[in-house]
Amino acid sequence: MENNNGTTIIVMSGDMDKVMAAFNIAIGAAAAGKDTAMFFTFWGIKAIQKGNYTGKSLFGRMMGVMNRGGIDRIGPSSFNFWGLGRWMFKQMMKAHHITPLAELRKTAMDLGVKLLPCQMSMEVMEIRQEDLIEGVEGPCGVATMLEISDRSRQTLFI
Amino acid sequence: MENNNGTTIIVMSGDMDKVMAAFNIAIGAAAAGKDTAMFFTFWGIKAIQKGNYTGKSLFGRMMGVMNRGGIDRIGPSSFNFWGLGRWMFKQMMKAHHITPLAELRKTAMDLGVKLLPCQMSMEVMEIRQEDLIEGVEGPCGVATMLEISDRSRQTLFI
Amino acid sequence: MENNNGTTIIVMSGDMDKVMAAFNIAIGAAAAGKDTAMFFTFWGIKAIQKGNYTGKSLFGRMMGVMNRGGIDRIGPSSFNFWGLGRWMFKQMMKAHHITPLAELRKTAMDLGVKLLPCQMSMEVMEIRQEDLIEGVEGPCGVATMLEISDRSRQTLFI
Repeated sequence: MENNNGTTIIVMSGDMDKVMAAFNIAIGAAAAGKDTAMFFTFWGIKAIQKGNYTGKSLFGRMMGVMNRGGIDRIGPSSFNFWGLGRWMFKQMMKAHHITPLAELRKTAMDLGVKLLPCQMSMEVMEIRQEDLIEGVEGPCGVATMLEISDRSRQTLFI
Repeated sequence: MENNNGTTIIVMSGDMDKVMAAFNIAIGAAAAGKDTAMFFTFWGIKAIQKGNYTGKSLFGRMMGVMNRGGIDRIGPSSFNFWGLGRWMFKQMMKAHHITPLAELRKTAMDLGVKLLPCQMSMEVMEIRQEDLIEGVEGPCGVATMLEISDRSRQTLFI
Repeated sequence: MENNNGTTIIVMSGDMDKVMAAFNIAIGAAAAGKDTAMFFTFWGIKAIQKGNYTGKSLFGRMMGVMNRGGIDRIGPSSFNFWGLGRWMFKQMMKAHHITPLAELRKTAMDLGVKLLPCQMSMEVMEIRQEDLIEGVEGPCGVATMLEISDRSRQTLFI
């Protein structure tokens, strides 16, 4: 493995299907021996949150309710239909033995994929490090993300 | 052309405008002599489907109705307005002599752009190879996509 | 700085949060001394429009009303709620001293980030160069964008 052959994935979307795509690509990259990092920003942070209610200010708490984190709580980007889409999607995934999101995330971490939360997003959305799952790196900014991306062969914005 | 100067485009979106952007970039890249591949996953597969109803199980058939494929059937990501957006978009495109999607796709294929369907998406959505248009490669996974991407100068996630 | 270490960002989205992410990454890249270019296409063009009504034909004017440009007029991709999302988002950003979009754009330009409008999108949406803010380059196509991208270390599609 060359040092400049890694994979960086910026996850801005909090949609179930896009988060799934992100983890699938990350797992494939890590399995191929590539240095792999995922940078979670804005809605993407939901995918690495524990799922408790967050926020301290009025706005922060409103955001915490409307945009509650937790990888099992997010729905697909299309055909959500007030939860029906998520349920249908999960049924189809189960019928076809597709790995659930939480397991995909665990596999990614086991393979050494680095999960980086975006500092600015955490501040704006009033999410603290203890609201994130175990094993996530400390908050970092665009500069750090770009340094990693500069050693990557592909950087995806999802 | 260098061997590591290709272009890889992952098409996850099934929105008309994003699919159009994807094909336009692919055509530009192929015309510039770059090895160009498009990997269609999730909703993006609609852009390489023939357009018949798909699916065998209850869920698969529901998905096939709600998410029917065919490149002339998809609408733009914004301002869809129950089909009005697609109609308006097509009118403006016609007025300005913009190439329709189906022709863009043909041009891309004529220029040697490889169209790769994502195996996992086909399984989950119960889409068979015969539901896809002629000239599409066989189903492939993330590993194959990454191998191609590793020889690319830019990999886009659309 | 190497000549092939730039950053190219294709901005197709006209959503406030995605445009903000795009400018934040562009600023980070330019601040790190990287050649940075942003290519605005489709809805993304709103982010470099002055904000006046555009379009000459019936369709062009309809598009100009429904999709009016101007960086302070765009809303977030999730939780828009008929403007509430944008207002709430701006309140949270203000409370946390996050730089407004118009200032981010100015900072990017001051740091030498090149803003390129997509020619085809301008034609389809009937947007003229004088509808765009000062300092934007002339309209260009996919070929020019790819040339710049070929000298970039990462090309993002946002």
